[in-house]
Amino acid sequence: MGKNLTSRSEDYSKWYNELVVKADLAENSGVRGCMVIKPYGFAIWEKMQAQLDKMFKETGHENAYFPLFIPKSYLSKEASHVEGFAKECAVVTHYRLKNAEDGSGIVVDEDAKLEEELIVRPTSETIIWDTYRKWVQSYRDLPLLINQWANVVRWEMRTRLFLRTAEFLWQEGHTAHATRKEAVEEAEQMMHVYAEFVEEHMAVPVIKGTKTESERFAGAEETYCIEALMQDGKALQAGTSHFLGQNFAKAFDVKFASKEGKQEYVWATSWGVSTRLMGALVMTHSDDNGLVLPPKLAPIQVVIVPIYKGEEQLDAISEKVEPLVKELRSKGISVKYDKRDTHKPGFKFNEYELKGVPVRLAVGQRDLANGTFELARRDTLEKESVKAEDVVARIETLMHEIQDNIYNRAHAYRAEHITEVDSYDEFKVLIEEKGGFISAHWDGSSETEDRIKEETKATIRCIPWNVEEQEGKCMVTGKPSSRRVLFAKAY
Amino acid sequence: MGKNLTSRSEDYSKWYNELVVKADLAENSGVRGCMVIKPYGFAIWEKMQAQLDKMFKETGHENAYFPLFIPKSYLSKEASHVEGFAKECAVVTHYRLKNAEDGSGIVVDEDAKLEEELIVRPTSETIIWDTYRKWVQSYRDLPLLINQWANVVRWEMRTRLFLRTAEFLWQEGHTAHATRKEAVEEAEQMMHVYAEFVEEHMAVPVIKGTKTESERFAGAEETYCIEALMQDGKALQAGTSHFLGQNFAKAFDVKFASKEGKQEYVWATSWGVSTRLMGALVMTHSDDNGLVLPPKLAPIQVVIVPIYKGEEQLDAISEKVEPLVKELRSKGISVKYDKRDTHKPGFKFNEYELKGVPVRLAVGQRDLANGTFELARRDTLEKESVKAEDVVARIETLMHEIQDNIYNRAHAYRAEHITEVDSYDEFKVLIEEKGGFISAHWDGSSETEDRIKEETKATIRCIPWNVEEQEGKCMVTGKPSSRRVLFAKAY
Ligand SMILES: [Zn+2]
Ligand SMILES: [Zn+2]
Repeated sequence: MGKNLTSRSEDYSKWYNELVVKADLAENSGVRGCMVIKPYGFAIWEKMQAQLDKMFKETGHENAYFPLFIPKSYLSKEASHVEGFAKECAVVTHYRLKNAEDGSGIVVDEDAKLEEELIVRPTSETIIWDTYRKWVQSYRDLPLLINQWANVVRWEMRTRLFLRTAEFLWQEGHTAHATRKEAVEEAEQMMHVYAEFVEEHMAVPVIKGTKTESERFAGAEETYCIEALMQDGKALQAGTSHFLGQNFAKAFDVKFASKEGKQEYVWATSWGVSTRLMGALVMTHSDDNGLVLPPKLAPIQVVIVPIYKGEEQLDAISEKVEPLVKELRSKGISVKYDKRDTHKPGFKFNEYELKGVPVRLAVGQRDLANGTFELARRDTLEKESVKAEDVVARIETLMHEIQDNIYNRAHAYRAEHITEVDSYDEFKVLIEEKGGFISAHWDGSSETEDRIKEETKATIRCIPWNVEEQEGKCMVTGKPSSRRVLFAKAY
Repeated sequence: MGKNLTSRSEDYSKWYNELVVKADLAENSGVRGCMVIKPYGFAIWEKMQAQLDKMFKETGHENAYFPLFIPKSYLSKEASHVEGFAKECAVVTHYRLKNAEDGSGIVVDEDAKLEEELIVRPTSETIIWDTYRKWVQSYRDLPLLINQWANVVRWEMRTRLFLRTAEFLWQEGHTAHATRKEAVEEAEQMMHVYAEFVEEHMAVPVIKGTKTESERFAGAEETYCIEALMQDGKALQAGTSHFLGQNFAKAFDVKFASKEGKQEYVWATSWGVSTRLMGALVMTHSDDNGLVLPPKLAPIQVVIVPIYKGEEQLDAISEKVEPLVKELRSKGISVKYDKRDTHKPGFKFNEYELKGVPVRLAVGQRDLANGTFELARRDTLEKESVKAEDVVARIETLMHEIQDNIYNRAHAYRAEHITEVDSYDEFKVLIEEKGGFISAHWDGSSETEDRIKEETKATIRCIPWNVEEQEGKCMVTGKPSSRRVLFAKAY
């Protein structure tokens, strides 16, 4: 397998598109904008799902499943919500096909037209809140802490594997609470859960913050987000959590009897992450040789490649390797022993580099004689010779070291790419030439935000939580500002 | 909670519909034919999924994800396949909504009509084989052993929760092989995997067999199935596995270079089970008091209910219960300690009976004094007093005993309801009055099969594998038959 991968410096965007396909993560399907997630890519997504699901359950959430279809009238009930989604809806209008009368093939049966069109869910607030009305009568029924793993569809015109696809996989949490305070706390909690997952498991550092009004979710009173930085200096929104106020409760008439016996509207949150995280994972760590995967999410953590001529040599190697495979597996490390005789070692080295396997062991005749393995780590591409008796311990350490190292590397890159700026002229230059996050004062108005976006394509990624209040002046209008916000061009 | 559950003898169908809703498994949504799977029901489905997924991986399969939408032209490529699904397809025709010009609300934007309609997948053979064409060049690329967990839509006119819904959840395996023999073996293997899962985990006995030509999957050369028997004497098809021959390879032009360098069409299988299994689980074991769940799939295996007056008594009970909860959890047993003070013990007893929790412990003042727990098992409703020091061991034993007991009970019921019949007159009486499976000779023709179906509503569930060849005469036509087949009315 020749990698023939475009380099990042040559064309970052092309590098990404090629890598996703060549590393067997995903590919485009025959359906415009819809991807096929291939087994290797899906194995990574499964590991993400398993960890997130565990964290959701630890914070008291249960899973459920709601319909794929949303009646058009439901979508229309919350005004700003339908405004946000109407332009990208897949609409089901008929429920039957038939043979064309002129024998020209299969056609839609016009006699099977739906009375009301159904929308393929772009998100499920409306169908879920229509259900919650039946589930909530009293304060005793609250909180409802429910998550759904599902596919959703948003008809995007320009699509890219994982980053923007017409159909994608995600989870959407939808919770219902008796008080504003509890709902706000839930929305904040889930932002923290997302940040912990992305940092600890994906090894991707994120900035927690609040969205400005114009970047809010359609129907939310407040949107919290985590923002990551890719190697090309563009930001990527990795997860969002919304405090929805009583908007959906009012639209769907969901009230409860409080302890005092009063009828009150329920308070809501929703929060989600999607297969977009796969894009963030690829773009944060990978290099010109291919994927670099964090050990915690790598489907194969260690690959062992024998170097041999003839069956006798292979048998001698296998005798040493097979007990090692067992021992590593008993420690919960996933290992592949690749003794295919249809491919040369060099081909295999390339393939596992491309696929981001964190540790590669090679073993040939000299290693056999010396009682060693040649170990190569994917993150640094460094090689070392390790004694057979030390190899398990070394691999256990490396699982941790590689996880930490790629996090630290991404963190260092980001630290170099947060720039404080006080003049709009400087801002315009930096956003083009250096990229990354720019921390600047802003007067708080949507007008200024829009103007900056039009003139520079940069948006306010968030009002970061880790930044102190600070008196200042908007870099554009000179009006007073109470804190810096983070700008970037974004995916 | 008053159960107010219709009894099985009064109206079996009503009993089922009520039970599914009252036990919090699922309910109808505002979208015709689409169900909401509630958290308690979904927790059972998750346990099924986890076990099946493990068994699929142990037999070498990987998960992947393919698009929700299928272009109409793809569906049309395999003639008998489209014939089988065209009448129940949800069709996407537009990709945008807009505000009506007359201000009457949100309407479909006629300018956003798709050039080619998209079908919401009723099953994924076509989109997957369109993809496999790109993945298979050489015998080295085979076999492909892939599974997908997904939602599918079949526009059923009369729906029932879990048993027949417009949208349902399932898994669909799709494999590609170099030889007919290997594909047939795969299809057979998956029938055995399904049988093992349904019998060992759901505690539902099944009969393995082959479908007749008229009951085959649309596009299959052979369909294998497992058939279960419900308490009302009706059969339920619990899973199917199809040998697809080269039909889809030919329709989608999927060829490979054999070892000898020849271009050959690939051989295919597909196999699936769905949330229908939830219906089978409910209808096999449950009784007039509610659900009866097999311990292996019960979200809560043991519930502990304190019986007390005042906080002091509750504290004394909790002191005994909390270490027990810990110990049970350390043994992998899921326990709920329900000390809600908003509900009386009798209400709780009813609720957990309705929800099928296998073991209930109650503990009151007398138990405290005697150092005992009152234990009730859900399957037999028997109660016993167990010494505190024996309770963990007793529960561990019971997990096994209850699992076996409900299997044996279902097996005994089925054994009593397989009747050998040699005359069509007797058949007609028995199928009405006794129900169950009827084992009879049949001449092998679709004409006779159709006639029996029209006249009695019974279908051939399968040609069972566990039945010896036997010379005989068709009960209807008197023509020669080489083995008995199984008839039943079915869900
Ligand atoms: Zn560490
Ligand atoms: Zn047993």
